[in-house]
Amino acid sequence: MNTFGINLRLTTAGESHGPAMCAILDGMPAGIHADFDTLEEAMRRRAPGGKFGSPRREPDKVDILSGLYRGITTGAPIAFLIRNRDVRSEDYESISTVYRPSHADYTYQARYGHTDPRGGGRASARETSLRVAAGAIAQWALAPRGIDCAAFTMRVGSEAIPSEFVDFSQDDIWSSPVYCPHKPTSDSIEACLHSVASQGDTVGGIVGGRITGLPAGIGEPIYGKLHARLAAAMMSINAAHGFDYGMGFDGCCGLGSELNDVFDPDGHGGISLRTNHSGGIQGGISNGAPITFRVGFKPIPTLGRSQSTVARDGSIAILEPRGRHDVCALPRAVPVVQAMARLVILDSLLSPKL
Amino acid sequence: MNTFGINLRLTTAGESHGPAMCAILDGMPAGIHADFDTLEEAMRRRAPGGKFGSPRREPDKVDILSGLYRGITTGAPIAFLIRNRDVRSEDYESISTVYRPSHADYTYQARYGHTDPRGGGRASARETSLRVAAGAIAQWALAPRGIDCAAFTMRVGSEAIPSEFVDFSQDDIWSSPVYCPHKPTSDSIEACLHSVASQGDTVGGIVGGRITGLPAGIGEPIYGKLHARLAAAMMSINAAHGFDYGMGFDGCCGLGSELNDVFDPDGHGGISLRTNHSGGIQGGISNGAPITFRVGFKPIPTLGRSQSTVARDGSIAILEPRGRHDVCALPRAVPVVQAMARLVILDSLLSPKL
Amino acid sequence: MNTFGINLRLTTAGESHGPAMCAILDGMPAGIHADFDTLEEAMRRRAPGGKFGSPRREPDKVDILSGLYRGITTGAPIAFLIRNRDVRSEDYESISTVYRPSHADYTYQARYGHTDPRGGGRASARETSLRVAAGAIAQWALAPRGIDCAAFTMRVGSEAIPSEFVDFSQDDIWSSPVYCPHKPTSDSIEACLHSVASQGDTVGGIVGGRITGLPAGIGEPIYGKLHARLAAAMMSINAAHGFDYGMGFDGCCGLGSELNDVFDPDGHGGISLRTNHSGGIQGGISNGAPITFRVGFKPIPTLGRSQSTVARDGSIAILEPRGRHDVCALPRAVPVVQAMARLVILDSLLSPKL
Amino acid sequence: MNTFGINLRLTTAGESHGPAMCAILDGMPAGIHADFDTLEEAMRRRAPGGKFGSPRREPDKVDILSGLYRGITTGAPIAFLIRNRDVRSEDYESISTVYRPSHADYTYQARYGHTDPRGGGRASARETSLRVAAGAIAQWALAPRGIDCAAFTMRVGSEAIPSEFVDFSQDDIWSSPVYCPHKPTSDSIEACLHSVASQGDTVGGIVGGRITGLPAGIGEPIYGKLHARLAAAMMSINAAHGFDYGMGFDGCCGLGSELNDVFDPDGHGGISLRTNHSGGIQGGISNGAPITFRVGFKPIPTLGRSQSTVARDGSIAILEPRGRHDVCALPRAVPVVQAMARLVILDSLLSPKL
Repeated sequence: MNTFGINLRLTTAGESHGPAMCAILDGMPAGIHADFDTLEEAMRRRAPGGKFGSPRREPDKVDILSGLYRGITTGAPIAFLIRNRDVRSEDYESISTVYRPSHADYTYQARYGHTDPRGGGRASARETSLRVAAGAIAQWALAPRGIDCAAFTMRVGSEAIPSEFVDFSQDDIWSSPVYCPHKPTSDSIEACLHSVASQGDTVGGIVGGRITGLPAGIGEPIYGKLHARLAAAMMSINAAHGFDYGMGFDGCCGLGSELNDVFDPDGHGGISLRTNHSGGIQGGISNGAPITFRVGFKPIPTLGRSQSTVARDGSIAILEPRGRHDVCALPRAVPVVQAMARLVILDSLLSPKL
Repeated sequence: MNTFGINLRLTTAGESHGPAMCAILDGMPAGIHADFDTLEEAMRRRAPGGKFGSPRREPDKVDILSGLYRGITTGAPIAFLIRNRDVRSEDYESISTVYRPSHADYTYQARYGHTDPRGGGRASARETSLRVAAGAIAQWALAPRGIDCAAFTMRVGSEAIPSEFVDFSQDDIWSSPVYCPHKPTSDSIEACLHSVASQGDTVGGIVGGRITGLPAGIGEPIYGKLHARLAAAMMSINAAHGFDYGMGFDGCCGLGSELNDVFDPDGHGGISLRTNHSGGIQGGISNGAPITFRVGFKPIPTLGRSQSTVARDGSIAILEPRGRHDVCALPRAVPVVQAMARLVILDSLLSPKL
Repeated sequence: MNTFGINLRLTTAGESHGPAMCAILDGMPAGIHADFDTLEEAMRRRAPGGKFGSPRREPDKVDILSGLYRGITTGAPIAFLIRNRDVRSEDYESISTVYRPSHADYTYQARYGHTDPRGGGRASARETSLRVAAGAIAQWALAPRGIDCAAFTMRVGSEAIPSEFVDFSQDDIWSSPVYCPHKPTSDSIEACLHSVASQGDTVGGIVGGRITGLPAGIGEPIYGKLHARLAAAMMSINAAHGFDYGMGFDGCCGLGSELNDVFDPDGHGGISLRTNHSGGIQGGISNGAPITFRVGFKPIPTLGRSQSTVARDGSIAILEPRGRHDVCALPRAVPVVQAMARLVILDSLLSPKL
Repeated sequence: MNTFGINLRLTTAGESHGPAMCAILDGMPAGIHADFDTLEEAMRRRAPGGKFGSPRREPDKVDILSGLYRGITTGAPIAFLIRNRDVRSEDYESISTVYRPSHADYTYQARYGHTDPRGGGRASARETSLRVAAGAIAQWALAPRGIDCAAFTMRVGSEAIPSEFVDFSQDDIWSSPVYCPHKPTSDSIEACLHSVASQGDTVGGIVGGRITGLPAGIGEPIYGKLHARLAAAMMSINAAHGFDYGMGFDGCCGLGSELNDVFDPDGHGGISLRTNHSGGIQGGISNGAPITFRVGFKPIPTLGRSQSTVARDGSIAILEPRGRHDVCALPRAVPVVQAMARLVILDSLLSPKL
């Protein structure tokens, strides 16, 4: 299943070491003004080559092939390419003969029988570059409506933002080299990443999400609940191992009397909320408060150390470290989480109406 | 969106206080033998009226209308009804004039403008009775393949199964009045529920999931990852606030060198795993190890206490406790989690093939 | 695939001789007033027992189980049942041991291995009763918008409405016992049906369709063209063998200079059309002119004569006439065509919008 | 809706005068050997520049970006591009200010408000080049199973193949310059096209379809009937105005006693058919006989003559002939019909199975 979304559908294709990554975004409304700065900025934030990312250098230029006329969307599907330029498949030749631990090599082999092993092939996180581009395009329609989807580094290893730190801006996020808006935590995460990298190890982390500006009444009931769709979106990102929203897993141990969000009249016939344990969603539909969620990422499984494993022929093998890899899914996962949130929110806004 | 699934599609309808809950399960393969005991047993486990459930008494008889001939599935869609018998709408008359805190009353109103407020209407957890029935029907196809989907109470409030307790049977689960297979924890959860109930309060909890017998190679890549579909399934259950699998959120703080699952040759050209931090899934596709996950549930928002809130006319109101409600989403959520797992797994097995 | 539609989804279940036909209509907007007269009238028009229909007597009462509150739709899915009361399965006992010529018995057996043979089982045209009900419910939303979907008997055997006869009302259709608005043709079709029936034979026919009141700009491009969706809808009706629209197959032999629809200014910045060879659709999207189409139905394959065939065990068999059957798919197919048009049009109006 | 298919999904993008046409074909099974000759041959047959096609010269080279490794499919989505090289947008400048009669200019404007008018933009038949490529890729999986999808020119204007001429090969089709396997009709169609072209006019025609080698039991019941899916596929092709199968519209005037297909034992416990009025499909599911159908195409609306019309500003305008266009949708529609048949058949074979 290489398509995401219902009313706004992103279909992606491409392997890590093929000629290009390719996507078609279908369902964008007509009449939306393109903002190429937003697009390029988003791509830069996810691009490899950062301080803690793999040294692979990809300009990650997005080549839009359709769906725009004179800089405005036409309602036609938007196809775009990202060329794979800095491909060194030879790095992966030794790797391709073994099943890398906690990677998808073995399961893809079990599923398909014949796979492209170069650089992880279809399972590579390079696919997420297309998501980031699509999310930035979705943002063209969200921005004029005052809807903001923020993602940020909440935790890496044992370094975490204090829970009471909730008031920050997009600038606070992106000005941190690790996309962590809380300066002291940002510093300690940097130190942590350096330390883990120096040991040839990798580490996991948690990305926070916050969506503001969404009016009440957006989302679907029952199987299309807004948080269920966010969960599916986030869990589809490489290395994601957990999702919760609002009070999340912490709230699962609490009492109703403490965690209910009391309604107050807003003075205009509507409601306001004293607290936001519900994370902006009740019964799967937005209530107008900020939507808050977390996405947990496991440590990246490619280590800078030798690992025991099994070769494709079934024999014992040693996987020696090669290629170019990240120390942590964060901070590069942050713009991916943001992009998936943008896609889910625009899709939800685009519900069928008379 | 009242349909769940791709190859196996469950569509549900019905409100808490309407004449009946109704579902159509489409995509069941032909030639599967019906097992009505499995179906009735599943319904009984979710049925209201237990020690910790609401006192509403529903026999929850599933009336199958189609798709079976001489006790064997025909490949035609299976429609079924569950009648709502013990409906006391008058209990909800006062409630229907106010927005209950942390319920879906307000968001449904914002979304639809006109809703059925009786007993939560469409947003009521009564809808999950249909999921349990559908999951039991799916089980008819899973059982002969040796696939077992277990769900169990892992935690309520601060009472939790010790993490090292992993070896238990379905019988261990269902013989506990709170569906907790660890006897000492089961006892303390019972005590906790009594205590919370006596204070007119409610409490949250965590349901564990474990799927065994699934061969390697099941699941879809990218946007249809097995864990993403499980996440969407579980997060669509009323009151669910979090999902993780394998190492989950805990692993998000660990190191790759500790959490990678080392492959060993299984002696038959395949692999075995030394650990299962991946929770049986790599790259979205099963690796043959047990699939393990957790679903967190918030405290049920309906309290046995007065609560301040807002009336539908925008004025301040007091919500007095009325009607019949549960103290905790667990244990009744346990068979619902099991049912959703069964639906996801059978759907995944039913992938398009030449 | 037992679901029809994208934004408005009808899922049906039920076999001819099971306890009930069952459907769920999902996607109906909230706030639409129910009109039970429209519903009952539509059901009566399709009901068996007419002059030329099978003598099976079914009141075909539609029992709505959900989705309405105080006579107004809530946006929740609308489930409904039609009980099968006058079931005489013994009529079909002999039939069920042979493959009836030009029926679906053989192909269902090849597809499913185990099928319900009673009265055609799932393949019976009784399924269309659910479509008629769903179409009538869709009409609740179309009527206030001034959109009218008409279907009518255009031809039976060699008796056809003159091509220049295009100006008629819904009353003209339904006041004819064969749903043919042209009185002389209606009379000759009646005579034709009597004659064919008296010979134990059956005959084919053509249903015309006309949709008025639809504004320009409705429909999807490329694979979701309005006429492609109408084609799929109509070809899914039992016994349908052909669909065309506008100039149809006749125009396929003509010249562009004769068949182009010339635009004129409508005096308000828009257009009017001198002709309607395009049948109200250009590029898959409505142009504001009436949508016109035809649906061809083969002769019903169940004859009042002995037929040579093959038994399920592979031996030669003689199929003796039994049971209760129609002489012609028309006129009963007329309200079914109307219903499918209503579903397609409301689905198209319900397109995703910001 | 720019995606076609359920189990095999083709998503297309691209406008006539944009940089490239782009598609993603998702759902191709793994392990299928690529056959680039089949692909290039199919593209050549649809390519512009033929005797009766537009003089636009496009090599129509298909650039596959993903989904293949060492010439074998991997189960990953297959993205491909066709560059638009010979773009002369200036030809369309005058055109873009008026609504061309019987084109989609007006309806796209009504639907989207902002469209790409160059060369028909998204509505151009250039989109069908992607369908032909996708169909050829589908054929890689069909050929080894002995399944053959043929399309051929059956009629242009009043020149038609005799109905008794049914025995011909793919070679007979493609060796005709107008893809008509009956040599005398091929000759008269050539003459007809020359004559029509010389008058600056265009003409319609009918493409026949024939699918052989498909086993019995393929297809879905009710709303996914094989002929309903073929109808939707064919009616989504530019200029298509009609679809019928088997006996088609002709049979709609006949008697059941003449048109029923009598079953005979095939001597192996199965059946054979004396006739094939059902066109290989009963109840929406294949019966093992050849599937036969027809697709009617209207005359191409772009004439080599002046036409009266309306400008985008609402004033009266004259459309002068410019640009490069075909005389008839045939023969170039023939490989498109073939491609859509291939996609539907492979999709149907790829049904979900345990």
